[in-house]
Amino acid sequence: MAKEKKVEQITDMEVDFAQWYTDICRKAELVEYASVKGFTILRPYGYAIWENMQRIMDGEFKKTGHQNVAMPVLIPESLLKKEGELVNGFAPECAWVTQGGSEELEERLAFRPTSETMFCDHWSRVLHSYRELPMLYNQWCSVIRWEKTTRPFLRSREFWWQEGHTIHETAEEAMAETEQQLNCYADFYEKVLAIPVVKGRKTEKEKFAGAEATYTVECMMKDHKALQGATSHYFGDKFSRAYGVTFTGRDNKLQYPFQTSWGSTTRMIGAVIMAHGDNNGLVLPPQIAPIQVIILPVAQHKPGVLEAASALKERLAAAGLRVQMDDSDNSMGWKCAQYEMKGVPLRVEIGPRDIENGQCVLVRRNDGEKTVIRLAELEEAAKAQLELVQKGLYEKAKINLEEHCWPAFSVEEAKKLQEEKGGFIKTMWCGDVACEQKMKEEAGMSSRCLPFEQEKLSDVCACCGRPAGKMIFWGVAY
Amino acid sequence: MAKEKKVEQITDMEVDFAQWYTDICRKAELVEYASVKGFTILRPYGYAIWENMQRIMDGEFKKTGHQNVAMPVLIPESLLKKEGELVNGFAPECAWVTQGGSEELEERLAFRPTSETMFCDHWSRVLHSYRELPMLYNQWCSVIRWEKTTRPFLRSREFWWQEGHTIHETAEEAMAETEQQLNCYADFYEKVLAIPVVKGRKTEKEKFAGAEATYTVECMMKDHKALQGATSHYFGDKFSRAYGVTFTGRDNKLQYPFQTSWGSTTRMIGAVIMAHGDNNGLVLPPQIAPIQVIILPVAQHKPGVLEAASALKERLAAAGLRVQMDDSDNSMGWKCAQYEMKGVPLRVEIGPRDIENGQCVLVRRNDGEKTVIRLAELEEAAKAQLELVQKGLYEKAKINLEEHCWPAFSVEEAKKLQEEKGGFIKTMWCGDVACEQKMKEEAGMSSRCLPFEQEKLSDVCACCGRPAGKMIFWGVAY
Repeated sequence: MAKEKKVEQITDMEVDFAQWYTDICRKAELVEYASVKGFTILRPYGYAIWENMQRIMDGEFKKTGHQNVAMPVLIPESLLKKEGELVNGFAPECAWVTQGGSEELEERLAFRPTSETMFCDHWSRVLHSYRELPMLYNQWCSVIRWEKTTRPFLRSREFWWQEGHTIHETAEEAMAETEQQLNCYADFYEKVLAIPVVKGRKTEKEKFAGAEATYTVECMMKDHKALQGATSHYFGDKFSRAYGVTFTGRDNKLQYPFQTSWGSTTRMIGAVIMAHGDNNGLVLPPQIAPIQVIILPVAQHKPGVLEAASALKERLAAAGLRVQMDDSDNSMGWKCAQYEMKGVPLRVEIGPRDIENGQCVLVRRNDGEKTVIRLAELEEAAKAQLELVQKGLYEKAKINLEEHCWPAFSVEEAKKLQEEKGGFIKTMWCGDVACEQKMKEEAGMSSRCLPFEQEKLSDVCACCGRPAGKMIFWGVAY
Repeated sequence: MAKEKKVEQITDMEVDFAQWYTDICRKAELVEYASVKGFTILRPYGYAIWENMQRIMDGEFKKTGHQNVAMPVLIPESLLKKEGELVNGFAPECAWVTQGGSEELEERLAFRPTSETMFCDHWSRVLHSYRELPMLYNQWCSVIRWEKTTRPFLRSREFWWQEGHTIHETAEEAMAETEQQLNCYADFYEKVLAIPVVKGRKTEKEKFAGAEATYTVECMMKDHKALQGATSHYFGDKFSRAYGVTFTGRDNKLQYPFQTSWGSTTRMIGAVIMAHGDNNGLVLPPQIAPIQVIILPVAQHKPGVLEAASALKERLAAAGLRVQMDDSDNSMGWKCAQYEMKGVPLRVEIGPRDIENGQCVLVRRNDGEKTVIRLAELEEAAKAQLELVQKGLYEKAKINLEEHCWPAFSVEEAKKLQEEKGGFIKTMWCGDVACEQKMKEEAGMSSRCLPFEQEKLSDVCACCGRPAGKMIFWGVAY
């Protein structure tokens, strides 16, 4: 007998987007709050999404010769302080270890907020010759930044990420690495997460503390707010000099290597929720979905139904898909709602009549489209439907992005567009941080990036009217 | 022209085993010391070994239904203190965060030394019904224990590990899980790491703080010292009660679940070094070797050699092996020594004469055995040789273990055997901790375990002469 279990409701995104987001995080069982303020727990379903992201990204990093390492999690304050800009940027939000066992430490140790300093310290001891370059390292770990306000995935005191750190013989090679990794992130967002991005350079004000240049992939969420997707930094030889990282060059002289770093975090899960989710819950792009296909037997007590459903499961698993069957005694309505909440991209239904007709029903999560297929074509059809989910998600997100980019020619107009329509506001900009500050104060927007794809909207800065040669994107960001 | 590069020498293990060990850790580029006292860096080669271990173990854990999660790294002192034995065991070696950003924290936070407390805290909030049990969780992370003396992999203030944490409806199910995971570790040691183990139960004195029972796999190193390989703990409902973890049982009453935890760490890399290494360096079991086959072209400047060597590489890679070719201008002697140091299980040499004869040479790392094979049988032969490496390593380690287990009937005799022959000393034991203390003080040995495979050596305790029904293993442990 079917047990009637209540389907958990979430807030509609049109009513309260922030609450809708938090509801999904909890109801889809992605995260839980921990008893430590500002810290979160990644639950099995949330962590499985992260594992899929990790596996795909790690594979891409390795294809281009990167190797994983593990650096110590604690950084002595003196080491952190060697590069002035970095420490100014991160020291105010470090967690500090001051006691080890029963001893008070002579020097306090920061829980890593980022590991440039540790990598440089290591390289200063192991690098000798240009022959050892480049060193292309990456690590998967958690970092702490003592944020005041936190939200699951988007901003939490501890978050999980990868941080790539590389050193190169020449500035050109380091710049090429910075670009390559930015493109790696852009591809991951567009081809795996189905989220279109705007690639560009951060302003001096918004760049990473200590970097010479920061590049970013910026995405747009369903509420038309901006989200910084991932960043790639070029450091020149600034850190090398600060930390005494040297090598003997081809000319037999001591030289400083050129450095990059690049990072992406569990906030990508937040991006997926807000780029694709709907009022029924999460919608996952197939490649990162812990369950790609859920099989629901219809009238499962009838003879032959469970066997037929199990057979479909076996076939899809053998075809390399992540598939599960739910033959619990919950109602069909509850099951459908449950797997919609969890964002499973494809649902397969099979009941007595389907079996009779040698068919089953495939239902796409993203648009609810149903397709009746012959059982013989199951594997092919399921894969084709998953591709359609991927394509559908990307196209919808692309339209959302394209329809929410507005040119503006004054701060006032920019403000009005943001308030009335939302999205990215594009203007010309003179390059002065004062104008950036003005946009922030008067229109509530931060600069998102100077897009690589430039347009000439006018000759003058929207903020001050002085000559301007660059177009910049503004937005209200997460 | 071949550049003569000096082959780095390591200390012979017969001269100074500890120095030999440290030399391998450094010269095989597994680890580096960090500038933070007691902390180490896992370098690419060392980390790649860990990644292979992780991938294999993680696959095994998932086969039995375990799911990965991520818990916060910082634990409030009050939470840590809820279970008295655990806090007594771990508080003295915790690293404490006392400042977050610019604020002094009201309560200090421990960097996790182990996460039972966080898992229990989480379960106390998410567990409701017996239908949700068991919860089979695992996490891969680093932990800190503020050790006074440290050695790479074996004892360091930060180390990397997995910690499994599960809760079950009944005590029987939790006990079965504890055993299953102990067997999982034993299989990993024996079938993957090629290290035979002794399975058994820890004494009350040596068990995990707060556990009802701790089970262990104990290994023997080449210097005949013991190394605790991994442990699996049964907690009963002790932590559930302390942390208020409850569920509604089948009888509709509130009940406490039964709990286990089990862990294995990067010390497994230390175990591999000391179980298989020799005076030429590391010797890696094939399944965890970052490079399983190294191809060295002989007289590589001669026409056709590099092409032939590359072809072998492509074929072995296509056959699923992790293979590299070294066509650098270093000398053949240097290359051989280098890949021996790094423990690459199989070397393939191919030169002009081999090409003429349609053959190549396979050299096993563990025993230096050379086999000339037909090029046509390369894939099959390489795989067969790797299996022989695995088998050879296991058999040699098994003999080392079996030939260094000595029965003793008094503390004095035990002491003498340990000093003269080393290894595991087995005696009958009455179960009294005073006798354990005596063996420690007078013979310098700790109890390793009460092996599952018992023998009856006599009727009385070797320490006190009182009646004794159990055989125990003693050893000098890492």
